[in-house]
Amino acid sequence: MSDNFVSEITQLSVPNWELDKIVLELRTARNEWRRQSGRAKEPGLRELPSRDALQQIVRDLCGALFPMRLGPQELRQESEDYYVGHTLDAALTQLLQQVQLELNYFARVNNFPIEEKALKVQSLHIIRQFATALPELRRTLDVDIQAAYKGDPAAHSVDEVLLCYPGILAIIHHRLAHKLYQLEVPLLARIVAELAHSLTGIDIHPGAEIGRGFFIDHGTGVVIGETAVIGERVSIYQAVTLGAKTFPTDESGALKKGLARHPIVEDDVVIYAGATVLGRITIGKGSIIGGNVWITRNVPAGSVISQANTRLEAAEAEGA
Amino acid sequence: MSDNFVSEITQLSVPNWELDKIVLELRTARNEWRRQSGRAKEPGLRELPSRDALQQIVRDLCGALFPMRLGPQELRQESEDYYVGHTLDAALTQLLQQVQLELNYFARVNNFPIEEKALKVQSLHIIRQFATALPELRRTLDVDIQAAYKGDPAAHSVDEVLLCYPGILAIIHHRLAHKLYQLEVPLLARIVAELAHSLTGIDIHPGAEIGRGFFIDHGTGVVIGETAVIGERVSIYQAVTLGAKTFPTDESGALKKGLARHPIVEDDVVIYAGATVLGRITIGKGSIIGGNVWITRNVPAGSVISQANTRLEAAEAEGA
Amino acid sequence: MSDNFVSEITQLSVPNWELDKIVLELRTARNEWRRQSGRAKEPGLRELPSRDALQQIVRDLCGALFPMRLGPQELRQESEDYYVGHTLDAALTQLLQQVQLELNYFARVNNFPIEEKALKVQSLHIIRQFATALPELRRTLDVDIQAAYKGDPAAHSVDEVLLCYPGILAIIHHRLAHKLYQLEVPLLARIVAELAHSLTGIDIHPGAEIGRGFFIDHGTGVVIGETAVIGERVSIYQAVTLGAKTFPTDESGALKKGLARHPIVEDDVVIYAGATVLGRITIGKGSIIGGNVWITRNVPAGSVISQANTRLEAAEAEGA
Amino acid sequence: MSDNFVSEITQLSVPNWELDKIVLELRTARNEWRRQSGRAKEPGLRELPSRDALQQIVRDLCGALFPMRLGPQELRQESEDYYVGHTLDAALTQLLQQVQLELNYFARVNNFPIEEKALKVQSLHIIRQFATALPELRRTLDVDIQAAYKGDPAAHSVDEVLLCYPGILAIIHHRLAHKLYQLEVPLLARIVAELAHSLTGIDIHPGAEIGRGFFIDHGTGVVIGETAVIGERVSIYQAVTLGAKTFPTDESGALKKGLARHPIVEDDVVIYAGATVLGRITIGKGSIIGGNVWITRNVPAGSVISQANTRLEAAEAEGA
Amino acid sequence: MSDNFVSEITQLSVPNWELDKIVLELRTARNEWRRQSGRAKEPGLRELPSRDALQQIVRDLCGALFPMRLGPQELRQESEDYYVGHTLDAALTQLLQQVQLELNYFARVNNFPIEEKALKVQSLHIIRQFATALPELRRTLDVDIQAAYKGDPAAHSVDEVLLCYPGILAIIHHRLAHKLYQLEVPLLARIVAELAHSLTGIDIHPGAEIGRGFFIDHGTGVVIGETAVIGERVSIYQAVTLGAKTFPTDESGALKKGLARHPIVEDDVVIYAGATVLGRITIGKGSIIGGNVWITRNVPAGSVISQANTRLEAAEAEGA
Amino acid sequence: MSDNFVSEITQLSVPNWELDKIVLELRTARNEWRRQSGRAKEPGLRELPSRDALQQIVRDLCGALFPMRLGPQELRQESEDYYVGHTLDAALTQLLQQVQLELNYFARVNNFPIEEKALKVQSLHIIRQFATALPELRRTLDVDIQAAYKGDPAAHSVDEVLLCYPGILAIIHHRLAHKLYQLEVPLLARIVAELAHSLTGIDIHPGAEIGRGFFIDHGTGVVIGETAVIGERVSIYQAVTLGAKTFPTDESGALKKGLARHPIVEDDVVIYAGATVLGRITIGKGSIIGGNVWITRNVPAGSVISQANTRLEAAEAEGA
Repeated sequence: MSDNFVSEITQLSVPNWELDKIVLELRTARNEWRRQSGRAKEPGLRELPSRDALQQIVRDLCGALFPMRLGPQELRQESEDYYVGHTLDAALTQLLQQVQLELNYFARVNNFPIEEKALKVQSLHIIRQFATALPELRRTLDVDIQAAYKGDPAAHSVDEVLLCYPGILAIIHHRLAHKLYQLEVPLLARIVAELAHSLTGIDIHPGAEIGRGFFIDHGTGVVIGETAVIGERVSIYQAVTLGAKTFPTDESGALKKGLARHPIVEDDVVIYAGATVLGRITIGKGSIIGGNVWITRNVPAGSVISQANTRLEAAEAEGA
Repeated sequence: MSDNFVSEITQLSVPNWELDKIVLELRTARNEWRRQSGRAKEPGLRELPSRDALQQIVRDLCGALFPMRLGPQELRQESEDYYVGHTLDAALTQLLQQVQLELNYFARVNNFPIEEKALKVQSLHIIRQFATALPELRRTLDVDIQAAYKGDPAAHSVDEVLLCYPGILAIIHHRLAHKLYQLEVPLLARIVAELAHSLTGIDIHPGAEIGRGFFIDHGTGVVIGETAVIGERVSIYQAVTLGAKTFPTDESGALKKGLARHPIVEDDVVIYAGATVLGRITIGKGSIIGGNVWITRNVPAGSVISQANTRLEAAEAEGA
Repeated sequence: MSDNFVSEITQLSVPNWELDKIVLELRTARNEWRRQSGRAKEPGLRELPSRDALQQIVRDLCGALFPMRLGPQELRQESEDYYVGHTLDAALTQLLQQVQLELNYFARVNNFPIEEKALKVQSLHIIRQFATALPELRRTLDVDIQAAYKGDPAAHSVDEVLLCYPGILAIIHHRLAHKLYQLEVPLLARIVAELAHSLTGIDIHPGAEIGRGFFIDHGTGVVIGETAVIGERVSIYQAVTLGAKTFPTDESGALKKGLARHPIVEDDVVIYAGATVLGRITIGKGSIIGGNVWITRNVPAGSVISQANTRLEAAEAEGA
Repeated sequence: MSDNFVSEITQLSVPNWELDKIVLELRTARNEWRRQSGRAKEPGLRELPSRDALQQIVRDLCGALFPMRLGPQELRQESEDYYVGHTLDAALTQLLQQVQLELNYFARVNNFPIEEKALKVQSLHIIRQFATALPELRRTLDVDIQAAYKGDPAAHSVDEVLLCYPGILAIIHHRLAHKLYQLEVPLLARIVAELAHSLTGIDIHPGAEIGRGFFIDHGTGVVIGETAVIGERVSIYQAVTLGAKTFPTDESGALKKGLARHPIVEDDVVIYAGATVLGRITIGKGSIIGGNVWITRNVPAGSVISQANTRLEAAEAEGA
Repeated sequence: MSDNFVSEITQLSVPNWELDKIVLELRTARNEWRRQSGRAKEPGLRELPSRDALQQIVRDLCGALFPMRLGPQELRQESEDYYVGHTLDAALTQLLQQVQLELNYFARVNNFPIEEKALKVQSLHIIRQFATALPELRRTLDVDIQAAYKGDPAAHSVDEVLLCYPGILAIIHHRLAHKLYQLEVPLLARIVAELAHSLTGIDIHPGAEIGRGFFIDHGTGVVIGETAVIGERVSIYQAVTLGAKTFPTDESGALKKGLARHPIVEDDVVIYAGATVLGRITIGKGSIIGGNVWITRNVPAGSVISQANTRLEAAEAEGA
Repeated sequence: MSDNFVSEITQLSVPNWELDKIVLELRTARNEWRRQSGRAKEPGLRELPSRDALQQIVRDLCGALFPMRLGPQELRQESEDYYVGHTLDAALTQLLQQVQLELNYFARVNNFPIEEKALKVQSLHIIRQFATALPELRRTLDVDIQAAYKGDPAAHSVDEVLLCYPGILAIIHHRLAHKLYQLEVPLLARIVAELAHSLTGIDIHPGAEIGRGFFIDHGTGVVIGETAVIGERVSIYQAVTLGAKTFPTDESGALKKGLARHPIVEDDVVIYAGATVLGRITIGKGSIIGGNVWITRNVPAGSVISQANTRLEAAEAEGA
C-alpha cells in the first residue's frame, strides 16, 4: 500500500482545522477587547452568576411555594413540610452562592475588592430578607391566580391556571425577580426575568411594581418597563406595551437611568391586546383600554378608550 | 484561639436562615388558602398531570408519527416499525398514567371519588381512542407540511419544513391537543398547547377546530381562541389574533363558557401579519386579510381587506 | 378464585391498545406519503441534521467565543486557552458530522449519491472556513454588545448585556447561522436560526445581511426576512417586521426564490416597536421609524416617521 | 452514476441484519421456555422489582440514616430534619412500589391473583414496619462503626470508617436487607444483598442473623450463608466463608430449604483471612480462628485455632 | 485598599498551578513513550473501543434476550416484539461502530490501513453472525438459569436467579464475550469480560469454552483461563481457579500464546470453593473436587477429591 | 357515596407512615451518638470529601494522563494538548475543593479551626505538588503497562492492557492515592483506594510503596497493607495477601499505628495466586512464591517456595 494512499486516508480520517491558529486569534480578539474596555488588569476569573443555576433555583422555589401542585408527583400532606423545608433550603443555599457571585463581580468590576467576610455577611443578609418575604409572596400569588381564574371564562380550576397559564408563570418569576431587585442584586433579578421572557414571551423588567391580582392573558409580546407602577386587579392581554415614550423626543441622548419614565396604571384597569402605553402617564382607576390603541397622555379614571377614540385624538393632534 | 473567633467563623460558614419559621409561615399561608378555597378537607395528595411527562410524550409521539425525520439518527427502514411500535407503546403507557391523574384530579376536585376500576376502564378507553386516531392525524399533518412547503418560497424541502418551521411544531402539538380535548381530558390538552406556545410563541387553544393544509408563517404572537373554526388550506402570519370580541361589549360580566365566541375562517383564506379578527364572525372563503387590519364584522367570500378598507369602514362606522 | 375474575384483573392491569393495528396503519400512511412524494425508492435511512446536536454546538461555540462570561464557572485566565481549544474542537467535530448529514441528505434527495471521500473533503472545507471566520465574528459581536450597552439606559454593564439580553442571544445565533448560510449548508443555518427564535421570539432568516453594532431591544415578535440588508449601528425594537410586500401584489403567485424582496436599512437607523417595513425599499441613513408605523415606500436619509405621517401618507394614497 | 454503484453505497450505508428473522426466533425461544416452565398462560406482564430502583432507595436510606456524613454536601443542622424527612419519604414511597411489585409477582407466579386493595394494605403494613425499625437500626450501625474504628489501627476517625470501609457498606446493606427478609419480601432483600456484593465483594445472605459491633476488614471474598448466626463484637477478615457443609455429605440431594445449615459464631470471636467454617457448628465465645484454617467441627469457647492445629486435627482424622 | 492586599486576595481566589508547564511535560512523557513504542509516526487518532459503549450494549442485549425480566418495567406481551426489535437494533448499531473501531485499530497498529469499504463489509459480516447467534444463546442461558435454580436450595424462582445471581450475570456476559471472541474481535470480547469481572468478581477469559447448564455460586474470586474447556452441567463455587500451571515450570520464559494450557473439566463435575486446578489436565466426568484442594494432575471420571486426598498425594510426590 | 368508603379509598391512596415520629426518633439516635462521641458542640456542618467527586476527578486524571487511550473518542493529536490542559484543570479545581474539605474536616474534628486564608494557602500548595508529580507518575505507569504486557501471554497490545486489565486500573488508582497520602490528605487517598477496590477487588492501602513495573494479574482478593514496600518489576496474582502478622501474637492489643508491620518484597519477585505473606519480613530479590503458600519468615534472594516447602517448614516448626 503506497504511502500516499495511507496519508490520504489519514488526512480525511484525522481532520485538522488549524486549531492553534484560531485559538491564538481568538485570544488576540479577547485581548483587544479587554484593552479597549479597560479590563486588561482584572484578575483572570470567570465569576458571573449562572442562568442554569437560577433556573433550578426558581424551579425549587416554585415547588416550595406550591408543594402540592408544582412539587413532586408523590407528595402527600404528611411529607409536605419536609419537602418544603428541604427544597427551600437547597434553593436558598444555591441562591446564596449566586448572590456572592454577583456581589463579587460588582466589586471586581468597580475595582474595589470586597473582603471574604464582608461578602459573606452581606450575602447572608440578602438571603434572609429574601426568605422572610416568601410567605407574603405566596399570598400575593394566590390572589393573582384567583384573578386569572375569574378573568378567563375558559379556565376550569385554579389548579389548571397555576399549571398551564404563561401569565402565571411570568408573574411568579416577576415577584421573585422584583424581590431580588429590591435587595440590590439586579443581575440575578434580570436573569430571572429573562427566564420568564424566554418561556412565555412576556418581558417584565424586575423593577416594575405590580399590585395583587395581576392577570396577563396569552401574553406573548407583553413588555413592561422598569419604572412602571401597576395597581391592584389589573388585567392585560398579549402584545401590550407599557413603555418609555422615546419618540418623538427632544431630550439629550443621555437618558438618566432611574428616572420614572414608564406608565402608572391604577387599580382595576383592563388593557386589551396590542395596546401601547408610553411615558410617565397615568391610566386612571377602572379604565378600559381597547385593543391596538396607542396612548401617550394621561387617561382619567373610568375611561373607555377604543381605536376610534384615539384616531380622533390623533386627528385633533394633527389639527393642532 | 478564642471562643468568639471560633463562633464567628462558625456563624459565617454554617449559615442559618430561620428555616423553621419560614416553613411554618408557608404552611400557614397554604392553610389559609385551603380554607378560603374550601379545600381544607381534601385528602392531602398531589396528583396533577405533569408538564415534563407530557413534553416527553409529545416528543415520543412526534418520533412515532415521523420516524425517519424526527426519530433517532440511526433509524433504517428495517427497524422502522420496531421503533414506531416501541416508542408509541412507551408514549401511550405514559399518557395512560397522565389521563388517570387528570380523571382522578377531576373526581377529587368535584368531591366524587371514582373507583379504581372505573377509572382504569375509562382511561383505557381514552387511550384506545387516541391511539386509533393517530394514523389519520399523520395524514392530516402531511397535508399541513405540504401546504407550508408550497406556501413559503424560502422552503427548500418538506423535510426542512418538518424539521425547522415553528408553525409545523405548533400544528403538530395542536392536532394532538385537540384530540385530547375531544376525549375530555382538557387539562392534558391545555398543557400540550402551552408546550407549543412556549416553544413557538403560537397560542392555539386546544378547542379550536382547524382544517387540513393549515399554514402559520413565523408565528410569534399568533392567538387562536377556543371556539374558532378554521377551514381547509388557510394561511396565517405572525401576530394574527382570532379572538373573542370583548370590547366594546354590553353583555353581562359573566361570559358563559362554551358559547361560540371566536371567528369562523372559511377555506383558502389568507390572513397577513398582525391582523386582528374578533367575535363570532365569518371570513368568507378565499378572502385575503391584510396586515394589521382589525375586523369585527362578517367578511364576504373573496374579499380583499387592507388597512385602507378598514379605515374607511371605521370612518363609516363613526359617521353612523 | 374464578377465571373470570382473574381475567378481568388481567385485562385492566395488562392494558392492550391494538398496537399491531396502529403500527400497520402508520406504516400505510407513511407509504402513501412516500409514493405521493416520489420517495418510495429512497434508501431507508434517517440521516437528517439534529436540532439537539446543533443546540449543543451553539452552546459550545458561545463558550469558545466568550470563555470568561459564557464558559464554565471555574475558568481562570491560566486555563482559558485550553478551554477554548478543547471546546472549539468538540464543537467543530460535532459540526463536521452535521455538515456531512446535510450534504448527504441533499445528495440523496437530489438522487445523486456523493462518494464518501468527496463528501469528507467538502465538509472539511466548510468546517475550516467556518472556524477561520470565528475570530472576526467575535470582534463583530463585541461591537454589537457595546451597542446594546450604550443603547439601553437600564443596562449596568457589558457583562449583563451578554448574559441576559435576548437581542444579544439572537444576534450571536444569527451571525453563526449566517456564516453557515454563506457556506451553503442552509438547513443547518435554518435550525440555528430557529433555536434563537424559540428562545427569544426573534425570527431572523439566516440569509439576512446585518452590519456591526446591531441592537434589538425586548425583541419578541421581530421578523427579518431572507434578503434584508441592514447597515451598521441599527437599532430595532420588539415586534418590528422587515418583510416582503406581499399585499397588495400584482406579481404571479410563483414568487421566485432568491429575488431581493426585503428592505434595505441603512446605517444608524432606529425602528421602534411594532413598525412594519415591507418590500425591497430603502430606509435611508439615520432615519427614525416610529412605533407601529407601516411602511412600503422608500424613506429618504434622515427622515423621522411617526403614525401621523403614515396616516397622512395613507390618506394621500387614498386620495390618488 | 450507475444503479449498481448506488445500490452498493446504499447496502453499506444502510446496513441490514435481518432483524425480523432474529426477532421471530427470539420470540420462538421465549415461547419454548414459557411452555417448558408452564408459564404460557401467564398474563404478559413484566412486573418484577428493579435493581436500579433499589440502588437509589438504599442510597437515600443511607442519607436519611447518616445525614451529616452520607447526605448532601451543603447540609447544615438547621436543615437536617427536613432533609431526613424528605429523603426518607422518597425512599419509602419508592420502596412501597417495589414491595407491591414483589407481592404481585409472588401472587402471579403462584397463580393466585391478589386484589388491588389487599395488596395495598399488606404492602403499607410492610413499609410501616420497615420505617419503624430504622432508628434502632441506626443505633446498631453506630456500634458497628465504632467496632470498625477500634478494630483497625489504620483508621483515623469514625467518619473515615463510615465513608470508606467496604465492610461498613456491606453491613449497612445487610441490616436493611435482613429487615426486608424478616418482613417477607425476600426478592427485595436479595437484590439489596447483591448490590453490596457487587460493590464490595462481600456476599452476606439477607437471612443471616448478625449481632452488634460486627466488623469485616478488607472483605473481598467473604461469604456468609442464609442460616448463619453471629453474636456480638465478632470480627472477620477477607475471604472468610461461613458456609454449609456440603462435602463430604451423605444427605439426600434435595436439601430442604430453611434447615439450619450454616455456623453459629458466638460473641467476641475473631476469624482471620481465608478461614473456612462449614456446617451447623458452633465457634465458641471469644475464640480466635487463624488464617486459611478449615473448620467443620464445633470449637469450644476461648479456643485459638491455627493451621498447625487443623493439620494435626486432620492428621488425627486421617489416622482414625 | 492597598495593591498588595488586592494582589494577595487575587492570588488566593485565582489559583494558578503552572498548567502550561505540566501540560508540556505530559506531552514530553507521551512523546518519549511513543518513540520507545515505535508509535511516533501513527496518525494522531484516538480510535479505541469504549468500555462505556459496551456496557450499554450489553445492557440492551440483556433486555432483548430477556424482555419480560430484564426489559423496562412497563413491558407487556403486546409490545414485547417491538421492544425486542428496537432494542436489539440499537445494540447492534452501536456494536457495529465498536467493531469498526477495533478493526480500524488493529489495522492501524499493524501498519496496514484498511479501506473504508472493506472495513464496512467485514464489520457488517461480524454483526450479522453475532445477531444470528442470539436465539441459540438465549436457549443456552435458559439452561444455565435452570441449573442455578436447581443447584441452589435458597433460590425461590428462576426469575430471582436471573435478577439477582452474580453467577448468572457472569455467564450472560461470558456467552456474549465468547461469541465476540469467536468472531475475532478479541478486544471487545475482553472488555465485556472485564465488565462482568468488575460487577461480580468472577474473571472468565472470553476464550474459555463452557457447556450448557453452567452454575457458579457466590463467585467472587473465580478465575477461568483462556483455553479452559468446560462440559455440560458443571458447578463451581467462589474462589475456584482453572488456571495455567506456571509454577514450577521448565519451559522457556516466552510461553507461546494459543497453546492449550488450562484444564478440561468434563460434564457434571462439581468444584467447591477455593479449589485450584492448574494446567492442561482433565477432571473426569462426574468428579467432585473439594474445597481448597490443589490439583495439577488428571482426575479420573467419578473421583471425589478432598483436602485429605491431596495432602497424601503431595506426600507421595515428595516421597518420589 | 358513603364517607366511610371515601375515607377508605383515601387511606390507601394517601399512605401515611408516621414520618414525624420516625424523623424524631432518628434525630434522638443521632443526638445520642453525638453526645457519646463528644460531638454535641460541633458546628452543624456536613463537610466531608465526596466519593462521587473523587470518582470524577480520577476519571479526568486518567484522561489527562492517557489522552489518546482513555480520553474522548474524537480526540486527535491536533487537539490533544487542549484536551489535556482543560481536563487537568477541571480535575485539579475539583481536587482543590476536596482537599479543602479534608483539611477543614481535620481542623474541625481536632477542635482547632483553621483560618480561611491559611486553608487556601495550604490546599493550593498540595495541589501544586500533586500536579507537578503527574508527568513522572505517567512515566512510571508506562513501565507498569509494559510489564503487564510482557507478563501476560494473552495480552495482544499495550492498549488492550491499559483499556482492560483490572490490575492496571488498580495501579493507576494506587499511584494517585499514594501521592495524596504523601501530601497528607489520607482521607482522599483512602477514598481513591476504595474506588479501585470496588471496581477490581484489589485492595491496596494508599500508604504502600510500590516500585516501577508492578503487575497484578486477575487481582480479585489481593490485599496489600499500609507499610508494605515493594521493589521494581514485582508480579503478583489474585488473592495474594501482603498483610500484618496478627496471629499468633503476644504484643499488647493496642498496636501502634505507623509501625512497619507489612512485608518488604524486593525486586523481580513473583508471588502466585492465593499466597499469604505476613509480617515485617523480607522476600528476597528474584524469589518465586508458589500459589497458596503461607509465609511468615524472611525468604532469601532467589528462593523458590512451593506448598511442599512450607509444609515441611511448618512440620519443622511443629517439631520444635
